[in-house]
Parts: sequence; C-alpha cells; structure tokens
Amino acid sequence: MSREGSRPDTAARAPRESPWRASRERLRDRQVKREAVIRAAAHAFNRKGYHNTSLDDIAAALEVSKPTVYYYVSNKEQLLFECFVAGIEPIRAAFREVRPLKEPARNRLKAVLRHYGQAVASEFGWCMVRAEDQDLSPAMSGHIKALKSEIDQGIRRLLREGVQDGSIHSCDPKMTAFALAGALNWIAHWYRESQTLSGAQIAEAFITVFESGLMPRSGAENTRTARRMSVRLAR
Amino acid sequence: MSREGSRPDTAARAPRESPWRASRERLRDRQVKREAVIRAAAHAFNRKGYHNTSLDDIAAALEVSKPTVYYYVSNKEQLLFECFVAGIEPIRAAFREVRPLKEPARNRLKAVLRHYGQAVASEFGWCMVRAEDQDLSPAMSGHIKALKSEIDQGIRRLLREGVQDGSIHSCDPKMTAFALAGALNWIAHWYRESQTLSGAQIAEAFITVFESGLMPRSGAENTRTARRMSVRLAR
Repeated sequence: MSREGSRPDTAARAPRESPWRASRERLRDRQVKREAVIRAAAHAFNRKGYHNTSLDDIAAALEVSKPTVYYYVSNKEQLLFECFVAGIEPIRAAFREVRPLKEPARNRLKAVLRHYGQAVASEFGWCMVRAEDQDLSPAMSGHIKALKSEIDQGIRRLLREGVQDGSIHSCDPKMTAFALAGALNWIAHWYRESQTLSGAQIAEAFITVFESGLMPRSGAENTRTARRMSVRLAR
Repeated sequence: MSREGSRPDTAARAPRESPWRASRERLRDRQVKREAVIRAAAHAFNRKGYHNTSLDDIAAALEVSKPTVYYYVSNKEQLLFECFVAGIEPIRAAFREVRPLKEPARNRLKAVLRHYGQAVASEFGWCMVRAEDQDLSPAMSGHIKALKSEIDQGIRRLLREGVQDGSIHSCDPKMTAFALAGALNWIAHWYRESQTLSGAQIAEAFITVFESGLMPRSGAENTRTARRMSVRLAR
C-alpha cells in the first residue's frame, strides 16, 4: 500500500521515525559525543601532559561548557581511564578474534602485535603507556594494572602455545613478552602522526625484526664465518 | 737510604704526602662527593619524579645543607642532566671499546646492547629514558637529544656493518634500532632492583630474543608445517 491515499491525516503530520528509532539515535548521538570528549582528552594529554590539562581545556577544545563534559565523564581521572581503554580495547579484540583460529600460534601472536603496534601509534598511545605513571586513585590504578596484566598474560600464552606447536623458537615467555611489548610501547615515545610511516607500517617493520631476529637465516656460509670469527666479548 | 738516620728533624714533622698528592686527593674527594650528590638525585627522581623533587630533598637525603649541593651542581636541571650522562656514559664507553675490535658487527652490537640494558636497569635508568619528557631549557634538551641521537646512530651503524659483513640478517637499520632500543628503554618502566633477575641477566635474555627471533631455527619440519598452515590473517 502506498503512503498516499488511505493513510489518515494525523499520520501525515506525525514524525516519520518511530519513538524507538529516535531513542536509538539519541543513544548513538550520546555515544558519538562521548567519544569526541575522550578523543579531545587524549589529544590534550598528548600535547600538554595529564597534570597540565584541565577539564576546562577539554571543554574549550570542544567549544562546550564544562558541565557538558561532566555529562559524559565524572572527572579527569575517568577521562584518562577511558583514553586508556580506548587504546587497549583493539588489542583485547584482537586476542578474542584470533582465539578460535586454527593458525599456528606465531601467526596469531603476529596479528595481536600488529594491533598492539597500531594502538600505541594511535592518539591513545600516550595514555596507554603513561597512564600508570600518573597519580591515580588506588582503584583506578588497580583497574589499569589488571588490564595491562591481561595483555601481558595473553602474549605469554601465545608464546607458550607457539613453542608447543613448533611455530615459535624455544624461549622464556616472560622475558620475550617484556621485550616485544617494550619495543612496541616505546613507539608512543617517538611516534608523531607527521611521520612518513603509518602506525601499521611501523608495527609491520617491528614484527619482521621480532620474527627473523638479527642472526642471518640464509647465506649460511656468512653465518658460519661470523661464528668462526666470534670470540666471547668481555661483558 | 732508610727514613731514620740522616733525615733532618723538620722532615720528620712534615706531613708524609707531597702537596701535589694532597691536591690530587682533594680532587678525588670532590669527585666522590659530586657522584654521591648525583646518585642521591637519581634516587629521589626515581622515587618521587623530577618535578616533585627539590634540591632540599636531595640535601636532606645526604645530610648536608643546600649550599653544599650547589657547590657541586648549579641547579636541579643540571643534576638531571648529570644523572642522564651517568646512565648513558657506559653505553658510549661500550661503543668506543668495540670500535677497534675485529669481531663481526653482530657481536660488537651485542656487547653494546648488553651495556645498554644494564644501564637502563641501573638507578640512572629513569633519568635516561624520562629526562627528555621534563620541562627543560632548550639548551639542556638539545644536549640530551644530541647524546640520544649519538647512541641511536651508533646502533644503526653497527646494524649496517653487520648486514655488510654478513653477521646480521638484512634489515631496515632505523626501524631495527628503534625496536631494539625501545625494548631496552622500556626496562626502566618495569624493572625494580628487588627483581629476581639482575640488569645484566635481563639484558642477556633480551639479546637472545633479538638475536634468534621468534621463528624456529632448528626443527625445520615444524617450521615448514607452520608455514604450510599459515594463511594471511586479516590485518
């Protein structure tokens, strides 16, 4: 049946959308605005540091009042936590994504590290790697520690699985996880968006280093020569 | 000729050391005290952060007056710089030490990275990796950047030499240097002296990861299986 014709006059004057749809849109609108607040906070923390940033700065950057900011988050500490979560969530999602795959663990680990590198090079990288340094309430600090530990344990688990399935060289999972995560975390110290390489490209370059190691794999003759020449250097 | 006997009486009453030796000892004494000031500063910066530490705190820790501290350094900024230098100097020394050696570059690089890891796990580690984050004068900041760049360029040079002499797998020297230094720098974020492993042991464990990489080197059958199973994961 066409809209014109038999439809009563009242229906023509009513808003097109159902009240439920309007409510869903309001929710979505709130979500979009909340994300804008978090993004503005991440930007300000990156640029001025956590302690030098006020909620007034964030409100000013968004051209809204401070009470508007308070409508989305209860305080600056929560804002830092939300930035931390925004950065770390894609890594948690990557763990969930690779869990059911029948891939060798090294490939699953690489997929996670790829997301990890990209997250640290994102605007949330600073908050991800520096949040814990700030003076946070014990509860908040505990929250952050727990999330970081989840990621660390996830990497160690994939390393252990890789050693078991033969896709990863025998290693100390704890130290290896620290080395991998450390290299990636450090990206937040030097990466600027103006860089020629994207976050994804840097993650990829790092994964190549982690995967292959410094020791040559082909040109075995060179390696043997290098080994013959090798004398243990004084430590 | 024995000391007793023909020596005149005046000589017997004079101090045993020559005035030059006394002067050398005063210099050494000043050096020892200066190092104690720098070490106390490193300890305070580690514990409370640079901005929360005053020269009064450092004087109190040494049980001396603030003017005594000023006798050794001109301000807090210089103290941070001296801590930075104290941390980074053993790495510069390692570069000098390996330069004339006829070792393959991978071994020379490993010797440098060993010192690097130990330095970052030392009490000066915090200052080494965080100094640049503080609000420093442009001159001081420039000094620190120049020293960091020297280390970075030194690592890249050894990587290039290693690729040339066949002791290092073909790689992007810049990205590889960032990955190696990043992993080592990050030690300062998590290492506490209470740790079971010493700084040297951690450096050694990291070097094993860097050198071998994640991909297995022996058990080629496993590797081939892993490669066969491998499908490119969605990025």
